Amino acid sequence: MNIDLNCDMGESFGIYTLGHDETAMPYVTSINVACGFHASDPNNIVKTIKKAKKYNLAIGAHPSFPDLVGFGRRAMAASHEEIYADVVYQIGALMGICKTEGLTLQHVKPHGALYNMAEKDSKVAAAIAKAIKSIDPNLYMVCSCGSMMVQGAQAVGVNYVEEAFADRAYTKDGTLVPRREPGAVIQDPQAVADRVLAIIKNGKVQSIDGFDVALKPQTICVHGDTPGAVDMIKAIRTRLVQDGIAVRPFSVK
Amino acid sequence: MNIDLNCDMGESFGIYTLGHDETAMPYVTSINVACGFHASDPNNIVKTIKKAKKYNLAIGAHPSFPDLVGFGRRAMAASHEEIYADVVYQIGALMGICKTEGLTLQHVKPHGALYNMAEKDSKVAAAIAKAIKSIDPNLYMVCSCGSMMVQGAQAVGVNYVEEAFADRAYTKDGTLVPRREPGAVIQDPQAVADRVLAIIKNGKVQSIDGFDVALKPQTICVHGDTPGAVDMIKAIRTRLVQDGIAVRPFSVK
Amino acid sequence: MNIDLNCDMGESFGIYTLGHDETAMPYVTSINVACGFHASDPNNIVKTIKKAKKYNLAIGAHPSFPDLVGFGRRAMAASHEEIYADVVYQIGALMGICKTEGLTLQHVKPHGALYNMAEKDSKVAAAIAKAIKSIDPNLYMVCSCGSMMVQGAQAVGVNYVEEAFADRAYTKDGTLVPRREPGAVIQDPQAVADRVLAIIKNGKVQSIDGFDVALKPQTICVHGDTPGAVDMIKAIRTRLVQDGIAVRPFSVK
Amino acid sequence: MNIDLNCDMGESFGIYTLGHDETAMPYVTSINVACGFHASDPNNIVKTIKKAKKYNLAIGAHPSFPDLVGFGRRAMAASHEEIYADVVYQIGALMGICKTEGLTLQHVKPHGALYNMAEKDSKVAAAIAKAIKSIDPNLYMVCSCGSMMVQGAQAVGVNYVEEAFADRAYTKDGTLVPRREPGAVIQDPQAVADRVLAIIKNGKVQSIDGFDVALKPQTICVHGDTPGAVDMIKAIRTRLVQDGIAVRPFSVK
Repeated sequence: MNIDLNCDMGESFGIYTLGHDETAMPYVTSINVACGFHASDPNNIVKTIKKAKKYNLAIGAHPSFPDLVGFGRRAMAASHEEIYADVVYQIGALMGICKTEGLTLQHVKPHGALYNMAEKDSKVAAAIAKAIKSIDPNLYMVCSCGSMMVQGAQAVGVNYVEEAFADRAYTKDGTLVPRREPGAVIQDPQAVADRVLAIIKNGKVQSIDGFDVALKPQTICVHGDTPGAVDMIKAIRTRLVQDGIAVRPFSVK
Repeated sequence: MNIDLNCDMGESFGIYTLGHDETAMPYVTSINVACGFHASDPNNIVKTIKKAKKYNLAIGAHPSFPDLVGFGRRAMAASHEEIYADVVYQIGALMGICKTEGLTLQHVKPHGALYNMAEKDSKVAAAIAKAIKSIDPNLYMVCSCGSMMVQGAQAVGVNYVEEAFADRAYTKDGTLVPRREPGAVIQDPQAVADRVLAIIKNGKVQSIDGFDVALKPQTICVHGDTPGAVDMIKAIRTRLVQDGIAVRPFSVK
Repeated sequence: MNIDLNCDMGESFGIYTLGHDETAMPYVTSINVACGFHASDPNNIVKTIKKAKKYNLAIGAHPSFPDLVGFGRRAMAASHEEIYADVVYQIGALMGICKTEGLTLQHVKPHGALYNMAEKDSKVAAAIAKAIKSIDPNLYMVCSCGSMMVQGAQAVGVNYVEEAFADRAYTKDGTLVPRREPGAVIQDPQAVADRVLAIIKNGKVQSIDGFDVALKPQTICVHGDTPGAVDMIKAIRTRLVQDGIAVRPFSVK
Repeated sequence: MNIDLNCDMGESFGIYTLGHDETAMPYVTSINVACGFHASDPNNIVKTIKKAKKYNLAIGAHPSFPDLVGFGRRAMAASHEEIYADVVYQIGALMGICKTEGLTLQHVKPHGALYNMAEKDSKVAAAIAKAIKSIDPNLYMVCSCGSMMVQGAQAVGVNYVEEAFADRAYTKDGTLVPRREPGAVIQDPQAVADRVLAIIKNGKVQSIDGFDVALKPQTICVHGDTPGAVDMIKAIRTRLVQDGIAVRPFSVK
C-alpha cells in the first residue's frame, strides 16, 4: 500500500513571505506550486523549484484565477475559454521553470475558488482538464474525491487522481463540512493521523454525523502554512510509515 | 540566398485590440509573440498561436519587463536574477500554449526597454541568454546586429541570429539613429525595400552620414502595427522574391 | 422639463485606445470616468478630466471590480467590505485628479459586473452607496431604474438618481431584455430618439411584449464606443432639444 | 523645541502581512501610508487609516512607481507626466479613504525608487511637488535633507519639510552612506537615540569620516518593519522626551 502527501507551496510574493516551505518539504511527497496568478512571481517560482529539487519532490502546477489581491479565493465569472487559457498559461510558465532545472511536472491541481468551482461544475473541471491534457497528456489532474472534478476529468480523458483532505470533516454525501460549521476542521495531529491511516486502509471515512463514506484517494492534501501544520504533517507521515504504508508521489508505481 | 522577416504580433490585451496581425501574417516568416507582461493575456495568446499555425509561421516569445501600463517601454532597474526569472516564465507560458497546438518555439526576442537595455549591456543580454538556453538549448536568441546582445549571447553559448531594422537609419557605428532625429525612420516602402535588398546582398548598409557599415543579419525586423506598415512589408517581400532571395524562417536551412 | 445624458468615457489604457470620447463629449452632459480597475490608468484619467473640463461636463466616477483583463465584466465574489474599499479608493483617486483641475465630482456609477450585481442585490448596492456617502455626502449614486440599487441607495440614505437605457428593450417587469434575445438592442437612431423622448414625457416605456412599464429616470445612459453610437447620441439630443427638453446634468437644477 | 517622527505603515497586501504597525504606532507621530502601487490594497488602506485614527497620527501618502512585485524599489524610466499622474492618483485614493474617516492628509512622501530618483533629480522632485500642490496646496512634501528634492519643492512652491534618517550614517556631503558600505546603518538603539537628539539640538551631525554636516530636519524617519525597530523608536522617543523635546507632527505648531 502506498499514498502521496500533497501540499501547497511557493505562495510567497515579492518581498512578502508566506508558508513554511522548507520546514514542510522533508515530509511531503508532492507539491502544488503557485504560478503567479494568486501568489508568487517568477523569481519566487525559480527559488521554489530549486528547493523542490533539493528535496526530490514531485511537482505540480497550482493555477488560479487572476486575483493576487484576493489570493485566488474569490470566484470569478470567467468563461470556459478564459479558464482554459489561464490554466495553460500557468502550467506552461511552471513547466518552463522546471525545465531549467531538468525537472518535469507530475500534476496540476487548481487553486482556491477555481478548485471550488470545478468541484461543483463539471464543465469548469473539463476546461481545466482540457488545458492539462492539451499541454501534456502525461500530466495528472488532482481532483477532489467523488466530486464533479472527477466527471470533468473523465469526460476529457485526462489522467487524474483523487485526493482527500487530512484535517477536514466530511458529510455523509462525501462533501466537505463547510469551514464555518463546528467540527469542520480537525485540529489534533494524532486524530488526523489516525483518520488518514483509516482512509487509506479501509477506503472509507466516518462522516461528521456517523455514516460510512467511501473515500479512495491516491493523495492526501496537507497544509504547510503554519508551524502547527508542519507538526501535523510529521504526525501523519510517522503514523503511515509505522503502519507500513509507503509514502511516495502517486506517479511513482 | 535566404532571409527571414520577423514581426511583433499578438499585442492586443483584453478587449483592447492593437496591430493588424492577420493582415501582416501572410507576408512575414517569423513572429514575436507578446507574453502577457507588456501586452496580451492568456486568451489572446491562444488566439494568436492559432493564427500563427494557420499561416505556418515560425514562432518566437517576446518577453518584457512587467509593465502593462507602459507597454514594456520603460526601463526598469530589475536585477539579472529577476530578468532571468521573468524571461523563463514568459517563454514557458508561450511554449505551453504552443504545445497545445502541437507547435514548438523557434526563438526569443526581448521587447522594448528590455531589448534596449540588452543592446547596451552584455550582462543583461547574458541574463536573457541564460534563460533561453536553460529552458531549451534549441531556441535562438534574436539579437540586434553587432550590439552587446551578441556578446551576451556568445558568452552564454546560446544559439543566436542577428537582426537589422528595415526602416531605420544607422549611424556609422552601426547603431540606430535615435527616433527623434531627422531621417531616423525611412517612410517610403520602395526605398525601404531597396535598402533591405542591399543589406542582404552586400552585407552592409550606408549610414545616415554616408559611410559603409557592415550589417549581416539573418532576419529583418518589420512592423505590422499600422495599415501602412503592412504595405511596406509587402513591398519588401515582393522585392526580395523578385530578386531571387528565399524568404523563410531563419531556422529553416 | 429636463434630462441628463450620461456616457462612459476614459476607457483607454496605456497605449491602447478605446471609445470616441472627444467625438461624443459635445453631445452628452455627464460622463462616467473609468478609474483604473477595469480600464484606464492615472495618465489617461488626467487627460480625460482635462477634456471633460473643456466640454464643461459633469463628472462621475465609474468604479469596477479589479479586473483589467476582463474589463470589469466578470462577476467576482468580493466581500461587501472589499467592494466598499475598492469603490472608495477609486472615487478618491478620481476626485483627486478632478481637484487638480479645480473640478468636483457629481456622481458615481458602478461599472459592468459590479453594476449588474448591485442591480440584483441590495446589499452589494448598499456597500457601494456607503462608500459614496462616506467619501462625500453631496455625491449622487446613479442607479438602474426600479432595481435593487435603488433600495440599497435608500437604505444607506445616499443621494441618488435613476437611469434608463436609451437603446435597450425592457420586459414588463422593468428589467432589461438580455442582450442575447432578439430585439434586446434597438439599432435605429430615430427609433431610439423617439423612445427616449416618450420616456421623459410620459414616465413610461412600452415593454418588448407590449405592456406599459413605469420608468421615471433623471438620466439616460447612452454609449460612445462606436462611431455609430455618436450618431445615435446626436439624434437623441436633437430630438429632445426640438421638443423643448432641457438637456443638462441632473445636478443642475 | 519640537520634532516629528515619521514611519512607513500599511505595507501589507492581500493576505500578506508586513511590518508591526500597531506596535510602532504609539511611538511615532506621522505615518507614510502605502497607496497600492508598491504595497497595500484598498481594504488594507481602510484598516490602516482606522488604526491611524485610533492613535491620532498625522497621515501622509506614500506613493510609488507601479511595481508591486518589486515593492517599488526598482527605478523605472517613467516620464514626468506619468510620475505626476501616478502621484496624484495615489494621493487622491488615500485622501478619499481619509475623508471616509473624517481625517485629512498632512503630507506626501515618495517611496523607494521614486524617492531615490527625486533625491538626485530636481525635475522628478518637481513632478511630485506639482502633483502634491495641485491636489491640495495645504499638503507638505517630505524631502530628504539638503537633496534635490528640496530644490524641486522650492521650484514648484509646495509646502515642504526636510527629514533626516535616524539610523543611517552620512557622508561629509550630507548624503547617506550607501547601505552596502560598513557603518552605513547604526544598529544600537541608544547610539541612534543620542544621534537624533544631537541632530535636533545642534542642527548638525558628524559624518562617517568625522566632519560636521549641517542637518536641520523637521522630521526624523524611523522604521517599523522589524520588532527590533520598534525598540529603537521607543529609545529615540524616550530620549527626546527626557530632554524636553516635544514629539509631535510637524504640522502642529
